[in-house]
Amino acid sequence: MSSPQANALSRWLSVHQFFATYADHLDHERFAQWVDLFDPSDCRYEVLSRENRDLGLALPIMGCFSHGMVRDRVAMLAKGVLTYRRDKLLRQVSNVQVRSAEADHLTASANLVVYQSSEEGVSSLYMVARYECELIEGPQGLQIRRMAVVVDSFGIDTMLAVPL
Amino acid sequence: MSSPQANALSRWLSVHQFFATYADHLDHERFAQWVDLFDPSDCRYEVLSRENRDLGLALPIMGCFSHGMVRDRVAMLAKGVLTYRRDKLLRQVSNVQVRSAEADHLTASANLVVYQSSEEGVSSLYMVARYECELIEGPQGLQIRRMAVVVDSFGIDTMLAVPL
Amino acid sequence: MSSPQANALSRWLSVHQFFATYADHLDHERFAQWVDLFDPSDCRYEVLSRENRDLGLALPIMGCFSHGMVRDRVAMLAKGVLTYRRDKLLRQVSNVQVRSAEADHLTASANLVVYQSSEEGVSSLYMVARYECELIEGPQGLQIRRMAVVVDSFGIDTMLAVPL
Repeated sequence: MSSPQANALSRWLSVHQFFATYADHLDHERFAQWVDLFDPSDCRYEVLSRENRDLGLALPIMGCFSHGMVRDRVAMLAKGVLTYRRDKLLRQVSNVQVRSAEADHLTASANLVVYQSSEEGVSSLYMVARYECELIEGPQGLQIRRMAVVVDSFGIDTMLAVPL
Repeated sequence: MSSPQANALSRWLSVHQFFATYADHLDHERFAQWVDLFDPSDCRYEVLSRENRDLGLALPIMGCFSHGMVRDRVAMLAKGVLTYRRDKLLRQVSNVQVRSAEADHLTASANLVVYQSSEEGVSSLYMVARYECELIEGPQGLQIRRMAVVVDSFGIDTMLAVPL
Repeated sequence: MSSPQANALSRWLSVHQFFATYADHLDHERFAQWVDLFDPSDCRYEVLSRENRDLGLALPIMGCFSHGMVRDRVAMLAKGVLTYRRDKLLRQVSNVQVRSAEADHLTASANLVVYQSSEEGVSSLYMVARYECELIEGPQGLQIRRMAVVVDSFGIDTMLAVPL
């Protein structure tokens, strides 16, 4: 196998694993570990509608524009300040794609569907979205420079309580 | 790593990327680019029920039996001749498998779930299906010789308007 | 590509293919072939709730603790002894992860969403769960030493009829 092919494979699997880890942390409410996936020196997390994204409107529904803001976001969850539904969430991440790879960063996308399950074991569709992100190679693997969650579903009041 | 293993990995990733690209084009209504995924010299696109597929009945619910028919199919969509719901669709493709690999073509399958989201941001399950296809190595990557969409859901009147 | 990287890629693809094959056998009701995925000398299949799993309670909702029990489980289905709904099921397996790899076995996980479709072609969400398993390298590829299906959905009376 030629080296470029080998690198492409290796890179794709890294990105796939990154998304699986990202989803796992959130599914199991390990919010501090989710924060650690962001680059401390420069990062951004935002939720925006597909419509605005397609129109090129940089108008997020919600945004954290620094590592401190990302950390504060979930600190509230850990401390129980926000009230939100105690449903279990499970994130299905599919269609993982490496869209470009530069020397110092790469861009990637994936489709996301989130399911919620009540304490009584009743499950339903919660959220349909797409991840579009810029990742850098950090000391412990890939880290987030920018994570945009482009949502098709936005009629959900609790959507912004728990990160997607 | 032995060369057959390396080839298998490389082939699988190509097929995975093919499905991700296929889904992206349709999710974003880039119909002309979807057409370009088909082999111009010989191709076929068809939607059939799982029941008929399992019984070996070659009776598609809908079929395009040449590149011209595939092109005409979506030309109508671009021109707005057909009326169909303006819901956003998102395709989750999973369980990607390379089922056989010959010198000049390969067969592959994947599971497909499509979600629809209204302009108000309300999402729901639209379609459950399975891709079964024959692909050839074209000048710009994999191209479709035959794409069968084997559907579990068929109580949907708009199903045949937009390609799956 | 370095050899550890190549091995990791190769191992991941094997596990991905294992889950795709596992899902395919069940989706198409090839129960005997599903049984063949278990290690005949020592295996275990169990369904447990996420809550019990997280609390470390080894209290399965259902369990088969030997190859004979796994075989007997689906023998009843093949013989039509159990009555269960004839819906078609389709399993979407995503977020496939190899969690550890030892010389003689590996552990893996994946997220599972099952959809049911009636004879009339109406589809709905059936089950949200997660596979957590221990696999060994058998003569014909990976085999199951232990398969735990950790379910978020458990308000489903027919859940235990057909394996997940």
